[in-house]
Amino acid sequence: MTRAAHSLKDRMYTLIFTNETAAGRLFDKTLIALILLSLVIVIVDSVEQIARSFHSLLFGLEWLFTAIFTVEYAARLYCAKNRRKYATSFFGLIDLLAILPTYLALFFPELHALIDVRVLRLIRIFRVFKLTAYMQEYSHLANALSASRKKILVFLSFVLMVVLVMGTLMYVVEGPEHGFTSIPIATYWAITTMTTVGFGDLTPKTDLGKLIASTMMLMGWGTLAVPTGIVTAEMSRTRNHRRHSQVTCPECEADHLDKQDHFCRDCGAKL
Amino acid sequence: MTRAAHSLKDRMYTLIFTNETAAGRLFDKTLIALILLSLVIVIVDSVEQIARSFHSLLFGLEWLFTAIFTVEYAARLYCAKNRRKYATSFFGLIDLLAILPTYLALFFPELHALIDVRVLRLIRIFRVFKLTAYMQEYSHLANALSASRKKILVFLSFVLMVVLVMGTLMYVVEGPEHGFTSIPIATYWAITTMTTVGFGDLTPKTDLGKLIASTMMLMGWGTLAVPTGIVTAEMSRTRNHRRHSQVTCPECEADHLDKQDHFCRDCGAKL
Amino acid sequence: MTRAAHSLKDRMYTLIFTNETAAGRLFDKTLIALILLSLVIVIVDSVEQIARSFHSLLFGLEWLFTAIFTVEYAARLYCAKNRRKYATSFFGLIDLLAILPTYLALFFPELHALIDVRVLRLIRIFRVFKLTAYMQEYSHLANALSASRKKILVFLSFVLMVVLVMGTLMYVVEGPEHGFTSIPIATYWAITTMTTVGFGDLTPKTDLGKLIASTMMLMGWGTLAVPTGIVTAEMSRTRNHRRHSQVTCPECEADHLDKQDHFCRDCGAKL
Amino acid sequence: MTRAAHSLKDRMYTLIFTNETAAGRLFDKTLIALILLSLVIVIVDSVEQIARSFHSLLFGLEWLFTAIFTVEYAARLYCAKNRRKYATSFFGLIDLLAILPTYLALFFPELHALIDVRVLRLIRIFRVFKLTAYMQEYSHLANALSASRKKILVFLSFVLMVVLVMGTLMYVVEGPEHGFTSIPIATYWAITTMTTVGFGDLTPKTDLGKLIASTMMLMGWGTLAVPTGIVTAEMSRTRNHRRHSQVTCPECEADHLDKQDHFCRDCGAKL
Repeated sequence: MTRAAHSLKDRMYTLIFTNETAAGRLFDKTLIALILLSLVIVIVDSVEQIARSFHSLLFGLEWLFTAIFTVEYAARLYCAKNRRKYATSFFGLIDLLAILPTYLALFFPELHALIDVRVLRLIRIFRVFKLTAYMQEYSHLANALSASRKKILVFLSFVLMVVLVMGTLMYVVEGPEHGFTSIPIATYWAITTMTTVGFGDLTPKTDLGKLIASTMMLMGWGTLAVPTGIVTAEMSRTRNHRRHSQVTCPECEADHLDKQDHFCRDCGAKL
Repeated sequence: MTRAAHSLKDRMYTLIFTNETAAGRLFDKTLIALILLSLVIVIVDSVEQIARSFHSLLFGLEWLFTAIFTVEYAARLYCAKNRRKYATSFFGLIDLLAILPTYLALFFPELHALIDVRVLRLIRIFRVFKLTAYMQEYSHLANALSASRKKILVFLSFVLMVVLVMGTLMYVVEGPEHGFTSIPIATYWAITTMTTVGFGDLTPKTDLGKLIASTMMLMGWGTLAVPTGIVTAEMSRTRNHRRHSQVTCPECEADHLDKQDHFCRDCGAKL
Repeated sequence: MTRAAHSLKDRMYTLIFTNETAAGRLFDKTLIALILLSLVIVIVDSVEQIARSFHSLLFGLEWLFTAIFTVEYAARLYCAKNRRKYATSFFGLIDLLAILPTYLALFFPELHALIDVRVLRLIRIFRVFKLTAYMQEYSHLANALSASRKKILVFLSFVLMVVLVMGTLMYVVEGPEHGFTSIPIATYWAITTMTTVGFGDLTPKTDLGKLIASTMMLMGWGTLAVPTGIVTAEMSRTRNHRRHSQVTCPECEADHLDKQDHFCRDCGAKL
Repeated sequence: MTRAAHSLKDRMYTLIFTNETAAGRLFDKTLIALILLSLVIVIVDSVEQIARSFHSLLFGLEWLFTAIFTVEYAARLYCAKNRRKYATSFFGLIDLLAILPTYLALFFPELHALIDVRVLRLIRIFRVFKLTAYMQEYSHLANALSASRKKILVFLSFVLMVVLVMGTLMYVVEGPEHGFTSIPIATYWAITTMTTVGFGDLTPKTDLGKLIASTMMLMGWGTLAVPTGIVTAEMSRTRNHRRHSQVTCPECEADHLDKQDHFCRDCGAKL
């Protein structure tokens, strides 16, 4: 390519992929607004009454957004430093999914019969993940989660074990005549109970079942309450201890001096 | 104005806007009591049975409180250092709203037909915000919230993203025949589930739906349980480490030295 | 009184009110067991089926426990250092309430018509508070709660304000035709929602109502999730910082030395 | 036994009971996979529709797993250092329970009439506990829980006391005509409310009942919210204090000195 084209590529890259320049930041803000607007269109289109009244308008707007996102995707592919890397990255795939449904519906009209229009709406909703590229905090969050993933997995597997055993226990005690028709159903109920959600679509009817349910509820709520209480108690004790492990300067009677200080903070006398 | 009027204005200001004098504090306490009483009247007036039996009494009391608050508002306007600033501030607007409904109902009788009496009750309930002027702790709370507002917004937007995607997933899996009629409805259900509220007005009926619901419930509850567990584990580890590995220097009596130290941190003596 | 009586009084005091001797501790354990057994009798007596079958037995056992607790109460009154102080203290009143219902039913048979037998069961259930005398940890808990009472009251009043305003808002939006018949009812619903309990006996039917409900659910759950997240983030940052603000001894290359140390912990060299 | 047998026993022990060698770790991984697969069979077998269609296959797989676990149990018994200790330990009993149901059903066919097949499924589900042998973190968790058991018991007993008293109060206020038929039922409702689960199978109908319920909901949710808020406030205060009031000594460059200090803590120089 000629020098001018390279320069165009670089300028586009700075505009699209970075937010160092004012233009880059404006591009980002505009894109965020467009993503949010397109999501509103998808959400609103799913409501029967609104969809019937405004079908043409929503259809037109959807094509408009698809066109905009297609141009954006093409631009990204064009000026990316490494096209393959972008195209296969998380954001690259999301950007592709963002425009795919509308084209699929266009080029494969018989697809409507195979894939429910609801699925196409779901794929369009995935556009929301494009937003995560614009927030540093999300990568912080992702890193924090990744760092703790072992602890989270161990905790989760322990909860699943408890929920499986308690659920099966309820399956034995209550039985199919009270709605606990199988172990998976009973485990689903156990999860609604231990996570304190409590839908109420399935509830224990026998006295022993209610007793076991009470135990599970106390376990699920206690897992939140007990550590919180322990941490608060520790904090109180530390504050009190700090208030108590302090010495007084022999010269100027100042207190609040730590035992480890060498010189009095107020009069300079050697401690 | 004459010197006596200025003095009256100042004395009123000290009484109404500050709580430095005993009279100022008594004024505050009296006003708090009046606000609470007027709220009770509004609340009680909304209960059909009570409203029918005691209509005249409640009506009279409401006019009494409106009169009192009108005098208070006029007094504040009169002795405020900067009238415009007070009238447009949060507390100034609340004080105006506190007396407005009754006057609106009086001067614009046809308003009854346009604005539901329930709306007028709501505006009267806003008087409760007058109370926040009297508690320092509320401004602490407001400052703390304000300081963390970026973190809160990021967290909230992340939760909204998850709830939108999972909700739409349930909309696809369960569909209108099971109550999930549109993406907004499904997202509302997703919020009731992830916040562990679990009304039960809408519940998954398909097995895949119950599986997705289980995941969401574990996510919502886990967001509370996992950090609490991690924090408690950290605290235990720190306490145990501190308790098990501290020695005292034989020479200078410094404690808080780790068992593994070879030399005292303060005097350099060999341990 | 003679010397022997004084000695008996002292010996009874040591037995009943203190737990320094082995006999005193045995007395305590026995009393705890009796209290728990008497509670079981009251609880079991409230179940229709069991009460009908075993009425005589339960009646007899109730009289037995009342007799035992009467003897205990009389003994406490006899050997207490300050009778008036004991009789008017929390524990003194609980001990009196523990025996009162049965005597009331005996001496005032017409009372049955006035006070529901359920109320008498409730007063008997208050015996459970006798247990709190035996656990030091409960007084720790009570002290901790008492120390934080100002913060708790401020927080509680703030929650009540929010719940009142949001509840009234729902009362306006949903209205009596959807179950929100008055402000108290709407506030009750707001509490079930913000505390994430979510009974489901009352649920929003309008779209705006569901939107407001979603906000409230996120507020109620977020009040638990946001601080927990902030605390966990702080802890991670502190751990990372501690790992980063450490100097190395120039002589022996040991790290993990705090910046404030004067002498290297490993080789004794001056830092 | 001959030397070769001892050597075989040792080699088996290293394979089965330890995970120091690659073979030992492979054995562990294989066994975990087999345990999980066998659990899936039990879970799937409980679903009516699937059980009817695939009965023979599931029956055969169940026998296969029982055979594998029998061989494993026999091997463990053979090469254990102390057979009695293993056979009576938690893991030994779990391993026995894992294979027992199928043999019971085989040797005692009339057992089917006495013990519900659901109970046999429950005993098979206990195999999940075999997994805990393979995760170090579970023993950490068990130790942590064991260390805090006194605090947990005190907290739990306090919650049970509150739940019993509040539940009985609701039993008095609402009564059998609204579903609160006995103290145990009312206590079960109190637990669903205080743990914020809120099934909704039982709800207060009277105004006083709704008021008491509101108090309980605020208590249950507040037990999570108040300590979390206090801890976060403490952390903020510490951070702010630290950030706002630290100066550096001009002489010896020590930081972490408070603004209000007059003399440096380390070198005695005047600030």
